Amino acid sequence: MDFSENSLERICKVFGYLDTLEKRGVELVSSKELAEGIGATAHTVRKDISLLGITGYTRKGYEVGSLKRELGGKLGLSKERKACIVGLGRLGTALLDYEKFQEDGFEIVAGFDKSINKLERIRTQIDVYPVSRMKEVIESKNIELGIITVPSEAAQEVADRLIEAGVKGVLNFSHVKLDLPENVINVNLDFTNALRFIAAQLG
Amino acid sequence: MDFSENSLERICKVFGYLDTLEKRGVELVSSKELAEGIGATAHTVRKDISLLGITGYTRKGYEVGSLKRELGGKLGLSKERKACIVGLGRLGTALLDYEKFQEDGFEIVAGFDKSINKLERIRTQIDVYPVSRMKEVIESKNIELGIITVPSEAAQEVADRLIEAGVKGVLNFSHVKLDLPENVINVNLDFTNALRFIAAQLG
Repeated sequence: MDFSENSLERICKVFGYLDTLEKRGVELVSSKELAEGIGATAHTVRKDISLLGITGYTRKGYEVGSLKRELGGKLGLSKERKACIVGLGRLGTALLDYEKFQEDGFEIVAGFDKSINKLERIRTQIDVYPVSRMKEVIESKNIELGIITVPSEAAQEVADRLIEAGVKGVLNFSHVKLDLPENVINVNLDFTNALRFIAAQLG
Repeated sequence: MDFSENSLERICKVFGYLDTLEKRGVELVSSKELAEGIGATAHTVRKDISLLGITGYTRKGYEVGSLKRELGGKLGLSKERKACIVGLGRLGTALLDYEKFQEDGFEIVAGFDKSINKLERIRTQIDVYPVSRMKEVIESKNIELGIITVPSEAAQEVADRLIEAGVKGVLNFSHVKLDLPENVINVNLDFTNALRFIAAQLG
C-alpha cells in the first residue's frame, strides 16, 4: 500500500475506535472526536482517511458503521485471520484466552510449547501442541499470524520455524529484534520499553 | 525534554538494545548495528544520541556500557521506579511476575483487584490488595507508575483513581483511550491494534 507506516498505524487505531463507538451505538463521529480518540489531529485523520480514497465526511461527521466497513475493506481487516501463540508461559496462556482477539477478527487456533508437561497442565479451550508439530499444524490450519511469547533467547529460532511453516506476520513479545525476511510483517511489543518511554518523561 | 516523541521512543529502544548487548558481553557497537537492532537508520540513531549532548562515537563505534550509562543518566532510566498493576485477571497476573520488569529497573510492588475472591486465590510473591486500598498503598509505597489491565469499561475509573493517588505515568492495556491530565504520561499497548497493523499489510 502507498501509505506511510505512521498513517497505517493511525488508521488501524481509527478502525479500532470506530469499532468501540459502533458497539456503544454511536452513529456519527466528527474528525475531531476521532482524532481525540486516537491521539492525533483532526487534519491528520481526515488526510489519512482521504488518502485511502474515502470521502463521506459531511458537516455532521462520518457515519461510524459505514466508515468502519470502508476502512476494513480497504485494509483487509474484515477478513478473519488465524493466529497461533508460541510459548505458553504466563503471558502466552493469558493471550490464548484473550477474548478481544476473537471479537476483533483474530482467531487463535493453536498454542505451542516445547514442554509436554506444560501442555498437559494447561486449561484452555484452544488446541495446544508440542513445538515439534508447528509446521504440520500451521499448514493444515492455514495460520497466517504467529504470536511469540517465548523467552528472548528462543525467539529467533521460533520466528524462523513460524516463517518456514508459512506464517506471514509476527507479533513479537520478546525483547529481541528478530531477523526476518523482508516480506514478513513484524511488530515488536516490548513492555519494558513502554515503561521506559514513560519513565524518561517523568524526570 | 526538548526532544520529539519519536526520538525519545527510539532512544528508549537503543537503551534496551545496549542493555541486551552488555549482558551478552559485547563492548563496542557501531551506529549501524544499533540502528539495525532497533529498526532505524544509522544517521537517525547518531542524531538522536547527539541531540542528548552525547559524543563518544569513534571509528570503533560506541562503547556499550558507557553509552548505556550516559543515556540512562540523561533519561532518568538509572533510577529504580515503583509500579503497581490494577486488574489481576490472566494478563494482570502474568505481568505481576514478569521478571523482565524487575531486571529493567521497574519494581512491581503491588497488585490490585476488586474481587476479594480473586485476591485470595492468586499465587504470587507480590503483595496484592483490594482496589479500595489503592490510594493508601500507592502513597505509602511511593508508586510512580500504574499498569492498567482491567476490562475496558473500568479503565477510565481506575486511571482516575491512580492519578488521584499520585501516580504520574500510566501503561494502559485496555482498549480505550484514557482521558488524563496533561501532566500524566500515558502509553497504550493495544494487542489487537498491533495485529491489525500486521494484517493490513498482508493483503
